[in-house]
Amino acid sequence: MAKSDNGTRGLGRLMIIGGGEDRSEGKEILTRFVELCGGPQASIAIVTAASTLHEEMREIYDRAFAELGVTRRPALALKNREMANDQACAEKIYECDGIFMTGGDQKRLMAVIGGTLVAAAMHRALREHGTCIGGTSAGASAMSEHMLSDGKSGGLPQKGTTQVGAGLGFLRRVMIDQHFSERQRLGRLLSAIAANPYLLGVGIDENTALIVELNSGLEVLGQGAVTIIDGREVMSNLPDVSTADPVELINVRMHLLRPGFRYSVHGEEQQGRKVSPALEQIIPIVTNFHQ
Amino acid sequence: MAKSDNGTRGLGRLMIIGGGEDRSEGKEILTRFVELCGGPQASIAIVTAASTLHEEMREIYDRAFAELGVTRRPALALKNREMANDQACAEKIYECDGIFMTGGDQKRLMAVIGGTLVAAAMHRALREHGTCIGGTSAGASAMSEHMLSDGKSGGLPQKGTTQVGAGLGFLRRVMIDQHFSERQRLGRLLSAIAANPYLLGVGIDENTALIVELNSGLEVLGQGAVTIIDGREVMSNLPDVSTADPVELINVRMHLLRPGFRYSVHGEEQQGRKVSPALEQIIPIVTNFHQ
Repeated sequence: MAKSDNGTRGLGRLMIIGGGEDRSEGKEILTRFVELCGGPQASIAIVTAASTLHEEMREIYDRAFAELGVTRRPALALKNREMANDQACAEKIYECDGIFMTGGDQKRLMAVIGGTLVAAAMHRALREHGTCIGGTSAGASAMSEHMLSDGKSGGLPQKGTTQVGAGLGFLRRVMIDQHFSERQRLGRLLSAIAANPYLLGVGIDENTALIVELNSGLEVLGQGAVTIIDGREVMSNLPDVSTADPVELINVRMHLLRPGFRYSVHGEEQQGRKVSPALEQIIPIVTNFHQ
Repeated sequence: MAKSDNGTRGLGRLMIIGGGEDRSEGKEILTRFVELCGGPQASIAIVTAASTLHEEMREIYDRAFAELGVTRRPALALKNREMANDQACAEKIYECDGIFMTGGDQKRLMAVIGGTLVAAAMHRALREHGTCIGGTSAGASAMSEHMLSDGKSGGLPQKGTTQVGAGLGFLRRVMIDQHFSERQRLGRLLSAIAANPYLLGVGIDENTALIVELNSGLEVLGQGAVTIIDGREVMSNLPDVSTADPVELINVRMHLLRPGFRYSVHGEEQQGRKVSPALEQIIPIVTNFHQ
């Protein structure tokens, strides 16, 4: 396993995927995930706890990672909390170079692994030996402390129409949404951010990934966009209107990042382009800098 | 006709409707249009030049305004440029208290009336005796100097996929889009604003209207939202990418105004709520203040 050379950076990466990533053709995103785990010699665990179709989900990703040359793909059934609280299982998770959380339902994922020994082992693996944690769709939503767990698609923001729950907490001040452009989820993310302006909204499109290098940098790859909603200066009527009423939002800042975007707070990877101060200011928040 | 009591305010209003307004039931928006024209005693001209279905379009609005008690609904056929350059027709338009432009195709509307005597008469009526000019769908898009004339719906911003043309110029520094949430047009408006950051994007939903009181104020009514895109501080890769490439946008400011929103630069109509400086700053631009 790759050990960090100092205590402040390079400690683990998250790959947050908006669902629908290519698993059979070029596999751009999964290929990069394997690289971030250390290449084909890495051991990669597949966590299917978000789904009820454990075998089917496992098979899809097991085949994809096998096709990418990964031979160590430990079988770790996490179908219920008993399994997720099994000490041996937690130790196996901790030893992995990569952990990949599939789609399904983020509420189910959290109900099964939230607060368990396995969840604690994932945190330790991420922070102690740079394990890469990937998640797609439901597995993406669960990455942050505050999780968008449910909400209406396709509309404008409405008070009280998005539900929030406790996520895994790898990131602390963001709220993630997935299938973002495809399912027209801007309205529900704006609702969530209007109600929780302390958080940054991060909407990730299908077959698109945001790589977060903790305390360090961001990168986007894939086909769509990563939409960041910064509501810290928003003025909203939310406190004054009733449930299901339309929400007015003044002064949302929005950033639309595209594949190829790459930024490091340490400055080595900026591609020579000037970065907006408004974006530079939020990158430390997204990457959990100094937390 | 209502004459202005001084030279700086109250000179004409625009009602910019995002299409699909209620024309048969409560008619909230059209009722307000009639009020802004001066009530049932007003004379209201219906301009169908955006459409090829002149009689059908005229009949729909003629019936709606009749049901609202308007008896003076002068018949003004504007099927081609000859008609739009007819002196008698232009004089009739100038005398009206209200002018309503129906939907259809904004390119057709401009090809027929752009630069004609009728268009000039509309400008004079708006500025000299406070005529209210309404437009829905295509009729909304044509209100501004720079007109979004075509573009792909439903996607993320892509370079070169929106077309811009010369509009009627009642507003100068905005670009209007309509059927905004319903047809998922955020992407195309962002494309247009990335290419023209001097302009503010104004996206209006169906059955929703933005009332612009020139040099003075804004109001929103109806059912959806008015989305304002302020790209003046945007950093974008647009100059550096090829046609049809994805566009990255950093630091878009967005305001989502809702029915009930009302603001006057003269301060009498702010409903007691504090207004964000970011919004206050752009209202003079939208209302053509001091131009």
